[in-house]
Amino acid sequence: MNSPDTFARLYSEVQQFYADHFQLLDSGAADEWAATFTEDGFFHPETLPEPVRGRAALAAGVRKVHQELTEAGEQRRHWHGMVSVVPREGAEVLDVRCYALVFATPQGGAPSLRLTCVCEDVLVRVDGTWQVSERRVTRDDRPQS
Amino acid sequence: MNSPDTFARLYSEVQQFYADHFQLLDSGAADEWAATFTEDGFFHPETLPEPVRGRAALAAGVRKVHQELTEAGEQRRHWHGMVSVVPREGAEVLDVRCYALVFATPQGGAPSLRLTCVCEDVLVRVDGTWQVSERRVTRDDRPQS
Amino acid sequence: MNSPDTFARLYSEVQQFYADHFQLLDSGAADEWAATFTEDGFFHPETLPEPVRGRAALAAGVRKVHQELTEAGEQRRHWHGMVSVVPREGAEVLDVRCYALVFATPQGGAPSLRLTCVCEDVLVRVDGTWQVSERRVTRDDRPQS
Repeated sequence: MNSPDTFARLYSEVQQFYADHFQLLDSGAADEWAATFTEDGFFHPETLPEPVRGRAALAAGVRKVHQELTEAGEQRRHWHGMVSVVPREGAEVLDVRCYALVFATPQGGAPSLRLTCVCEDVLVRVDGTWQVSERRVTRDDRPQS
Repeated sequence: MNSPDTFARLYSEVQQFYADHFQLLDSGAADEWAATFTEDGFFHPETLPEPVRGRAALAAGVRKVHQELTEAGEQRRHWHGMVSVVPREGAEVLDVRCYALVFATPQGGAPSLRLTCVCEDVLVRVDGTWQVSERRVTRDDRPQS
Repeated sequence: MNSPDTFARLYSEVQQFYADHFQLLDSGAADEWAATFTEDGFFHPETLPEPVRGRAALAAGVRKVHQELTEAGEQRRHWHGMVSVVPREGAEVLDVRCYALVFATPQGGAPSLRLTCVCEDVLVRVDGTWQVSERRVTRDDRPQS
């Protein structure tokens, strides 16, 4: 379906996408981060009954958390790894399943690992760049359904 | 020997391979995980006097550990990183040396880092897919020979 | 500017570079590690008033730390992740911004996460291989300027 070179290209683009995506998130660039979702994209952590949908809601969530972290003097870092990319026919839509780590470091203190998670994304290419249209995250500290 | 584009392709394939390989392992898919080794492939952790050899033995080991973890309510996550890929002539056999992390999260509890390791694999291409033919793992908490 | 296939190639080369670079560092191969910097390359951790500049100084620093760690029976592991690569025109110079983790494992003891950092590198291609010409590292436990 996809040539090996296409896969290499897609895989590197996904890694670059996540790097930029999380560097925006962790720096509190709420609107820029939300713009890496599609306009109706959603983020569904299993801890919420409903997904957070749309860029305005996504950005608002980040702004709130980032302000709390800033006041607490804590820096979060999100890592994706063990990234499995499955292109759909045509390679304009990707199903991604990967692991996620969340680290937290207080000013003047020791870093800690807060969470290990599994993240399932649907990425779509919009005007040449990748965007998240669907994100589902499960936390490893919670019983799996 | 290998063109730059060939290297990009190999490197992305190895990353995808490890992603799928560890997602199978950590979900307890013992037979599917064992099938990512060659038929006579082996896994040699330095803590064992002899390697675990062959898919039946590899799968049996995973099943046993996964059952123990399930009963204990613990989720393990294996990460590979800092992956160095050296293709042998012809690029059908790869020598890989990388770092490995093992995380553990109990239900309702905090995650912890259990081990940091070095993993040395020989990957071979069989019918178009990569398989582990040899794996040697050393743990950083043990004196190095 | 750069074709998608060029980007895949660059991205895989950067990942391979960091893998080899940190495997050298963590094994205490001081001179080999220093040779992955340009001749006048520098490493500027924010904790130092001046950068460490040039291979002799870089190697001396690694030798000193490695000897201390060896005497203490501790193995360090450096991980780069969330690697964002921005090629400059011509793709012979790359601006890289990524996250860094430092793990430490004492012999016979449990591993710990020591630091989470942000690393900003300038990589240049010299005789076909990548080298660090500039490295700036900020630690997440320190107030950001």
